[in-house]
Amino acid sequence: MAPEASVLLSAMREVVGAAHVRDDEATLAAYASSTAARSTRALAVVYPASLEEVVALVRLAARHRVPLYPVSTGRNWGYGDACPVLEGQVTLSLSRMNRIAAYDPELGYAVIEPGVTQQQLSDFLREQGDLQWMDSTGAGPDTSLVGNILERGFGHSPYGNRLQNVSGMQVVLASGEVLETGFGHYPSARATHVFPYGVGPFLDGMFTQSNFGIVTRLGLWLMPRAETINHFLAQVERHDDIAPVVDALRPLRMDGTLRSILHIGNDLRVLSGGTVFPREQAGGSSALPPQVREQMRRQAGVGAWTVSGALYGSARQVAAARHALRAALRPTPARPVFITEAKLRMGERVARLLGSSAMGRRLRAQVALGQSLFAMNRGVPNGRFLAGAYWRRRGGLPPDFPRGANPAVDNCGLLWVSPIVPARGSEMLQVYGMVEPVFAEHGFDLFATFSMITERALGGVLTIAYDKDDPDEVARARACYRASFDILMAAGYIPYRVGNQSMADLDPHGDTYWKTVRTLKDALDPLGIIAPGRYEPGRAR
Amino acid sequence: MAPEASVLLSAMREVVGAAHVRDDEATLAAYASSTAARSTRALAVVYPASLEEVVALVRLAARHRVPLYPVSTGRNWGYGDACPVLEGQVTLSLSRMNRIAAYDPELGYAVIEPGVTQQQLSDFLREQGDLQWMDSTGAGPDTSLVGNILERGFGHSPYGNRLQNVSGMQVVLASGEVLETGFGHYPSARATHVFPYGVGPFLDGMFTQSNFGIVTRLGLWLMPRAETINHFLAQVERHDDIAPVVDALRPLRMDGTLRSILHIGNDLRVLSGGTVFPREQAGGSSALPPQVREQMRRQAGVGAWTVSGALYGSARQVAAARHALRAALRPTPARPVFITEAKLRMGERVARLLGSSAMGRRLRAQVALGQSLFAMNRGVPNGRFLAGAYWRRRGGLPPDFPRGANPAVDNCGLLWVSPIVPARGSEMLQVYGMVEPVFAEHGFDLFATFSMITERALGGVLTIAYDKDDPDEVARARACYRASFDILMAAGYIPYRVGNQSMADLDPHGDTYWKTVRTLKDALDPLGIIAPGRYEPGRAR
Repeated sequence: MAPEASVLLSAMREVVGAAHVRDDEATLAAYASSTAARSTRALAVVYPASLEEVVALVRLAARHRVPLYPVSTGRNWGYGDACPVLEGQVTLSLSRMNRIAAYDPELGYAVIEPGVTQQQLSDFLREQGDLQWMDSTGAGPDTSLVGNILERGFGHSPYGNRLQNVSGMQVVLASGEVLETGFGHYPSARATHVFPYGVGPFLDGMFTQSNFGIVTRLGLWLMPRAETINHFLAQVERHDDIAPVVDALRPLRMDGTLRSILHIGNDLRVLSGGTVFPREQAGGSSALPPQVREQMRRQAGVGAWTVSGALYGSARQVAAARHALRAALRPTPARPVFITEAKLRMGERVARLLGSSAMGRRLRAQVALGQSLFAMNRGVPNGRFLAGAYWRRRGGLPPDFPRGANPAVDNCGLLWVSPIVPARGSEMLQVYGMVEPVFAEHGFDLFATFSMITERALGGVLTIAYDKDDPDEVARARACYRASFDILMAAGYIPYRVGNQSMADLDPHGDTYWKTVRTLKDALDPLGIIAPGRYEPGRAR
Repeated sequence: MAPEASVLLSAMREVVGAAHVRDDEATLAAYASSTAARSTRALAVVYPASLEEVVALVRLAARHRVPLYPVSTGRNWGYGDACPVLEGQVTLSLSRMNRIAAYDPELGYAVIEPGVTQQQLSDFLREQGDLQWMDSTGAGPDTSLVGNILERGFGHSPYGNRLQNVSGMQVVLASGEVLETGFGHYPSARATHVFPYGVGPFLDGMFTQSNFGIVTRLGLWLMPRAETINHFLAQVERHDDIAPVVDALRPLRMDGTLRSILHIGNDLRVLSGGTVFPREQAGGSSALPPQVREQMRRQAGVGAWTVSGALYGSARQVAAARHALRAALRPTPARPVFITEAKLRMGERVARLLGSSAMGRRLRAQVALGQSLFAMNRGVPNGRFLAGAYWRRRGGLPPDFPRGANPAVDNCGLLWVSPIVPARGSEMLQVYGMVEPVFAEHGFDLFATFSMITERALGGVLTIAYDKDDPDEVARARACYRASFDILMAAGYIPYRVGNQSMADLDPHGDTYWKTVRTLKDALDPLGIIAPGRYEPGRAR
């Protein structure tokens, strides 16, 4: 370690206590573990417990000219995990800052720090009487809400476009100053967490997918508990048949009938949720042989595409939405199946009667899946949706999966390509048709989900799950990622979010947007102290 | 005029043509006319017709160090109108840039320039088959959509939180560079207008209520035409009784039952929509004597507060929402009255039968109001909601009102105080209770609307309508504005938007937010060429 860094770490120990600055091998290795084909190592990991400590650490970092790389809980799996974009940075883990600083049951919001996990807020809300639900992602119980929001992740519920449900951020700037956005900078402000814009330039968006500051707190809106939820699933057998379904669903999303984010997954996406790659049947191939895939699909009763979503409201409102959904899908080959809580309870009883028979087991698995979906709709996180990350992992799922699942530490190979596609069936098929041959050529199965994030756009999540213990497969995974990324960028299907490996490729033409981003960075952080290279193509190269 | 400015105007004439640079007295006076108690005069008004011309003008302004003050159509009534915040600026009117540059009927968006008016887009959409509706404000047909959005105005429909329905901005920076936000800076981008965030820092919010750039285009989402609309009105007789109504409506707004913005107006707000101040009955007072107010209320059948909103959806969905609304209001003194299109048609027929009798006239007026509300709900703008601005104007409403209504040019005195209040009945009453004595003390009637802009916040619009021809009343209006502004700021009810007269008062403490805003301004516009002083307290002083 450079002498300067070592002086810095001593000074940091003064601020947060010796136990909270770690540069031992085990810590550094854990933080360097990555689902990506590339990884960087931090100089140390520092764990502040408060805003004041973050401010002091930023000032120290500036004085010593050593950059800080803030992470919330460091579980940005498939997009760089906890790894800094560049070498030579000190990771600032905000995991100890895990206070739920405020909760307003009437106005339905919580003010949370970056260390607050999905499980923690979900538990908290239940303890407070289950008046509101949070939006949950499929990334599991131990992930940070703030971290995901700052990466502009999306969830499953009517509050799934998460950034639209944030009001009032607290941000530590590179100068060590503390910025309160919205109305928060007025000492007496009453509406900071109910009206995001404040007065004057609305700055919140700047602090997402950026390195302009360290967000230490934000107000998060919570949805009121719904009287009724129906989960619905709708399949199509043939690949092309999903196009009219997308076109039929879009108007319902636009007119507010479908308020939650819909997910449209291909057969493999659904299959990989319940099983891992069957090596013994694949004859050495890293992709499923067509007949094996066909057989798995048949056994599981999975169509080429499955739409999954939920309806929320009073019994009467949900009935009206069911009616509208049925009518909209009538001209398409898809028929919605509605899962209700009553059906799940009934299924549970029947499964118990059927005992350990094959039918009983299958029904039990279906009921368990349905319960997980319902839990997710209510904002109760569930690790089971992480299973896809383990698809090609040697040894498959860990014995106590999903408990404590951590794809990075568990040595899963995982890369995500996440193009945004206008919500038109034809364009979704076009994107799929562009990447499928690329995946096939590189020997990978294509897991695809397209989620209706906004009323008009699909967020594609294309998964490259690979065996990290096979150097050839690692190389193929990187090449497959790169080829998919390039072909989609060229066609105008730009990703909504990228892993560290792509930061440098976001600005192929040296355009005014990225030049402006750099101007803003230089104004706010002239020394480049906060996460240099993060969503900063020029410096990531 | 300083020689430098005169050289600049000659150069500008070269760019846009001599006819489109005006510094004649009539033009300058019209642009200096203001509903506010204070006004500034521009050096000239320049009317570019294209992006390229705007770029050339910005470069010229920078070269000559003369600031530009961009306005769209210049109808920011009650908030500074078309007046620059400071003297010595050249007004850049974007009214000639009035193209609807793109329209996607499937994905439901239009790409519009700043000169596009509410009437223009509304007409365009009807010509295109009435597939979608825009959100309309009450500010009348001739106002700019882009201008209102950049001031973070709000409308009446489910798309009334307008900024949430913007995707993809084109911005001319002070450097003369053209910034495309979201995905727009990627030449091949397919999803610019369906997914606002793009990849990397999300910058759109920065360009609202700011002077960081000149927005020359944006993508605006349109709502799909609804099968059914019901407008509802609900009154309470007693002032305090509105509190439980607000508390009963909030959960419906939060759970998505009420998707459109609700407006809650006091008696005067409703009365001022149909009549002007009755000078002859007021005995010289500038505020209504209590018994006159009482009598006007009784005659018009108006309660202390009226809630107004609309339900959109299929017949079945609207019926479910009506049911939910009735149930929620049952424990309160308010009973919703639903206006349907069938009822309006029936009313029209009956009114015709009643002819010119008093009952017939009254019914006809009610039907006309209902039709205006319905039109507004469908995004068809109507000038009649501007009537309040003429309350104290000598001579009352112009003969052909609302045609061509322009409160600034028509010499109306109008100042708005617009605090944001958490959507709690008790806080709404508290805010009202704080400002009412201030208005009374200064001799003004308090017109108040509280609109549920977000699911959790009320946007208060408190109107000071005054007689601009009475110097004493002008002085009292300024004092009343100032006292209300101060009392609300101190209590933490910060305005969501301010007029030019308050730019300097937005930063009483020299806080980090405004310091950051200045840092960003200096980075993007070091010469202060674009609208210096606008949402820039330090420079507005």
